Amino acid sequence: MTKIAILGFGTVGSGVYEVLKMNKESIAKKLGKEIEVKYILDIRDFSDHPEAYLFTQDFNTILEDKEVEIVAEVIGGIHPAYNFTKAALLAGKHVVTSNKELVATMGTKLLKIAKDNNVNYMFEASVGGGIPIIAPLRGCLTGNEITRISGILNGTTNYILTKMFKDGESFEDALKAAQDLGYAERDPSSDILGRDAARKISILMSLVTGIQTDVDKIKTEGITSIDSCDVEVAGKMGCVIKLIARGYEKDGKVFASVSPSMLQKDHPLSNIQDVYNGIMVYGNAVDNVMFYGRGAGTLPTASAVVGDMIEIAKDPINQGIFWHEASEDAFIPFSEINDQYFVRIEKADKEKAALVFGELDFIDCQKSNDSYFISPEMSNGEFNSKIVSIPIIKKIRIEQE
Amino acid sequence: MTKIAILGFGTVGSGVYEVLKMNKESIAKKLGKEIEVKYILDIRDFSDHPEAYLFTQDFNTILEDKEVEIVAEVIGGIHPAYNFTKAALLAGKHVVTSNKELVATMGTKLLKIAKDNNVNYMFEASVGGGIPIIAPLRGCLTGNEITRISGILNGTTNYILTKMFKDGESFEDALKAAQDLGYAERDPSSDILGRDAARKISILMSLVTGIQTDVDKIKTEGITSIDSCDVEVAGKMGCVIKLIARGYEKDGKVFASVSPSMLQKDHPLSNIQDVYNGIMVYGNAVDNVMFYGRGAGTLPTASAVVGDMIEIAKDPINQGIFWHEASEDAFIPFSEINDQYFVRIEKADKEKAALVFGELDFIDCQKSNDSYFISPEMSNGEFNSKIVSIPIIKKIRIEQE
Repeated sequence: MTKIAILGFGTVGSGVYEVLKMNKESIAKKLGKEIEVKYILDIRDFSDHPEAYLFTQDFNTILEDKEVEIVAEVIGGIHPAYNFTKAALLAGKHVVTSNKELVATMGTKLLKIAKDNNVNYMFEASVGGGIPIIAPLRGCLTGNEITRISGILNGTTNYILTKMFKDGESFEDALKAAQDLGYAERDPSSDILGRDAARKISILMSLVTGIQTDVDKIKTEGITSIDSCDVEVAGKMGCVIKLIARGYEKDGKVFASVSPSMLQKDHPLSNIQDVYNGIMVYGNAVDNVMFYGRGAGTLPTASAVVGDMIEIAKDPINQGIFWHEASEDAFIPFSEINDQYFVRIEKADKEKAALVFGELDFIDCQKSNDSYFISPEMSNGEFNSKIVSIPIIKKIRIEQE
Repeated sequence: MTKIAILGFGTVGSGVYEVLKMNKESIAKKLGKEIEVKYILDIRDFSDHPEAYLFTQDFNTILEDKEVEIVAEVIGGIHPAYNFTKAALLAGKHVVTSNKELVATMGTKLLKIAKDNNVNYMFEASVGGGIPIIAPLRGCLTGNEITRISGILNGTTNYILTKMFKDGESFEDALKAAQDLGYAERDPSSDILGRDAARKISILMSLVTGIQTDVDKIKTEGITSIDSCDVEVAGKMGCVIKLIARGYEKDGKVFASVSPSMLQKDHPLSNIQDVYNGIMVYGNAVDNVMFYGRGAGTLPTASAVVGDMIEIAKDPINQGIFWHEASEDAFIPFSEINDQYFVRIEKADKEKAALVFGELDFIDCQKSNDSYFISPEMSNGEFNSKIVSIPIIKKIRIEQE
């Protein structure tokens, strides 16, 4: 019997409780022992819950109970999640979490504490909801050098972009629909400005490179500027626009960004619809593999939290998940990264663009006075120096296969 | 340092050697120790190989060397792979393999021997090449009850069907192209008759249910009967045809089949092109997740073999992978499985079909005298009793989301 505590009985916490209850027998059969919830920490009143005796408002009860081997931190945010996690690890308890904000900002410290105390800090649920991605990266794909990750890591923005492309909705209407369905929060800024996706690519790149890839090192652009002209012309070109988080490792250095990106319709990520997530991983042996599924939601996310618990219960030693603080020169400057762009200008500026880039195919937007072209591939430094003489309206990165 | 031996220096074996060489440093860094190839067993002459001293033709040299902890059996087929694997496990060596035929037919016995000797028999590479699928099923997804698996598990047939749908090629021409590119063997029967896919779904279902799902219990149909009329009409309906291997578990009983299947174009598996594989897994918490990548090839398959090695080197205890022989009533009869079909008849038989099934929408083929309709969902038993009075030409199962 492995006894656990759940910190926070919100969306994910209640899911963890439900999954452990629903699959109690099958988990016990596969694991060879039961996983039992001993405490649920929540400051709210759950005295009418069928198992009200599990609830406590005092974290110390959990901390001081030697029987509790694993703590699921599913509160979210930095405080009090950080202090609880740190205290639990120091007390020799394993911590599993879905808290991407905490892992992205304090992961380095918490992993060090976990290592020093020979326990685990695990976070499969922090990226891609229930999709297995952390475990494959540190498990079956470890024979590879992972050179690139590209993914749709935020379900809310993918839902909005899907509505814009499939149903011709405006950004505002699609956002409203996402909010009505509970996919987007009342303050949707963390999703639509790309910060949520940045936290997730930060975690993935830190994990595969061993270098802490701080969110503030990630060039982050959201989807708020995408409009019906972009949708129209991208569609004409047989493409869709997705919010892509990408990361590279080259010669021991890291680059990561989040940006709306244009994908050909035969790109495996182009077909990821609605709130689904998809993550492409490029390894030097396996070539490319993709992981797809529900990137959020109560039970999918809980599935990942419980998966981590089972792995720890099976083998409660430190699994060696670890990354280091980054040195000052650990990051590749954006100016050195090669890209290609889908560039929007006013029709009147076509000649200026052709003067700078040479021969270009322009596609006009029917709905506005604007036109689009695809820039040749070059470093962002070179691109930015070239476009100073063209009044460009916007540029959308083109995702390569 | 973990010392290993490679049995068989063919496509996969040479890939394992190459991956271990190419990623020697990064593997050592992640694992904390080196993996070193001590022997390569092959009956052919490799005396001009740069590391010719690694080669041996005598399996006993490997078996008797206590330093060899892990053996990669990448010979394929049953003999001598079975005897070598058994002997290695009995000698306390872990065995990792890409040999789907051996795992599908002798897995139960070999897993028992591995367990009794506290070593591992691991086979990530036997399904989906380099795609992580076995590890997620027994790792991060263990919190779920897996109720269904549906996948494109054979790259050769997927390549052929892609050519037929995208380029309008005939089955024969597409097969020829696959052979010219080395995707299909000179005797392609194991692929095109569905046997290869049956072995793989056999392994997946045995793993998730714990019940040995023998290949001869799997209703298996290949793609040889698919012709240009089927392609034309499926296309008109916004669908593609894929060779789908599927398995269900219900109330502790198992069903699995392999058959050409019709998929709507927004089905996640419909967009899997060429030699790629895709595997959808349905869990009761995670809902559906999909794994995608190269299902074959030297380095992708080797990536999975090496991944298993690293996992064992990290933690060389028995991982508890196990399934049992099936009882007589372990399988759900085909007649009890509900399906829907894309049915082909002669145009002259439309009235007979409507008499049996009620109102039907028919779609005629331009290239022949035939017509198609979609049958209502019902058990296969009921369907088969209904069609006795209709001279149907063929039926293609419709894959549900």
